[in-house]
Amino acid sequence: MRLVRFQIDDRLARGTIRDGRVLEMGSESQGYALEDVRLLPPAKPSKIVAVGLNYRDHAEELGLAVPDEPLLFLKPPSSVIGPGDAIRLPRQSSRVDYEAELAVIIGKIASNVSAGMAKDHILGYSCLNDVTARDLQQKDGQWTRAKGFDTFCPLGPWIETEVDPSDLLIELYLNGRMMQRSRTSNLIFDPFHLVEFVSRIMTLQPDDVIATGTTSGIGPMAHGDAVEVRIEGIGSLLNKVEREEA
Amino acid sequence: MRLVRFQIDDRLARGTIRDGRVLEMGSESQGYALEDVRLLPPAKPSKIVAVGLNYRDHAEELGLAVPDEPLLFLKPPSSVIGPGDAIRLPRQSSRVDYEAELAVIIGKIASNVSAGMAKDHILGYSCLNDVTARDLQQKDGQWTRAKGFDTFCPLGPWIETEVDPSDLLIELYLNGRMMQRSRTSNLIFDPFHLVEFVSRIMTLQPDDVIATGTTSGIGPMAHGDAVEVRIEGIGSLLNKVEREEA
Repeated sequence: MRLVRFQIDDRLARGTIRDGRVLEMGSESQGYALEDVRLLPPAKPSKIVAVGLNYRDHAEELGLAVPDEPLLFLKPPSSVIGPGDAIRLPRQSSRVDYEAELAVIIGKIASNVSAGMAKDHILGYSCLNDVTARDLQQKDGQWTRAKGFDTFCPLGPWIETEVDPSDLLIELYLNGRMMQRSRTSNLIFDPFHLVEFVSRIMTLQPDDVIATGTTSGIGPMAHGDAVEVRIEGIGSLLNKVEREEA
Repeated sequence: MRLVRFQIDDRLARGTIRDGRVLEMGSESQGYALEDVRLLPPAKPSKIVAVGLNYRDHAEELGLAVPDEPLLFLKPPSSVIGPGDAIRLPRQSSRVDYEAELAVIIGKIASNVSAGMAKDHILGYSCLNDVTARDLQQKDGQWTRAKGFDTFCPLGPWIETEVDPSDLLIELYLNGRMMQRSRTSNLIFDPFHLVEFVSRIMTLQPDDVIATGTTSGIGPMAHGDAVEVRIEGIGSLLNKVEREEA
């Protein structure tokens, strides 16, 4: 099933996608063409827990050691935008990069959940772009500012509840050109082990997101670009890029 | 005014403190003795933005350079507990420290707010203990795990709306013994400049918290300890410390 949040006229609703149409939850006879609604971020997370350096090749391209445990950081809920929304390049950075990632969406509260039980706590999967001000990431040491600007967490287009996340093709396209390409089988720590690791530290709430890390091929975006995260079996998350207004 | 959230029997409510009594909002004639209610965390933040190394002496005790801009990190909402609640020492850390901090509570949405206008966006101030697993902070480099465990963000006992934050005595007591002592006049970046800096990065929502950093004198806590953050003009935040159960 593909779960969406959407806006139609002035109304917000939840729904599912079937045969390219949006069916409103609770009134499934009411259907809309996809192009007639505005898709919103499919989850409203209380926190976004992200994982650094979870593909060996990306650690290598940054010249960093592969960690022996997942390396966590947080993106604030205020950074989340939906499909089609604009990523805004802040004036205080001179290099803002895309990072294609598989997002795990929590469905049931999770505290001290083992990898073997993790599946029961996962609602589904989505595409996420872990937008990063690379210059500020290097300057600050802590990654919070670099990864925390408003609009720096595109999420969507929906939550796919039925996909097996173990070996999916994940790609990033910048203006139609492929820039990143890997498979989720290359993840050092897979979604189930990430739920175990994170839930031993902090209680995960429904709609919370785990961003599972990016592969090699990261690079900058410019005003006017179109950036797309594509994950096999899930879909495509497309966003435009705009300079912050003066 | 002192704003609280509290529990009485099975009911949650907001209120104010007057003459040592809790007056329920909307029915101020209804008053309770402080010892008859359970005070909850006074705010429900969508994010807690914390500042590292914001007192010169604390940067020196950690052997770290004083930053030329505020160094930000995030604590997850799941880490917040209220006055009287127990800080749980996780098994995966062998050293968990207290850090007494002044908390800024946002009252009005803030995006690109100048320091001169910041006061209009601040609801008030509270006490916060930025509990930190020191060994994991050093191991990970990123501070998210070390500062993100459940119970690692005691906040309270209330939001004081009328205090001037510019020169308040701030102290930490461990089992009644003074361990930290400074004045908020020693902050490198004051609350108004922090609102400016943070709100240029991420939109602050009502109830969001800025933890302004700690002074020197940090140290570990053990099972059975009582830890208290005291800030002049605000109040005292007291928590007990417990080992995580096996």
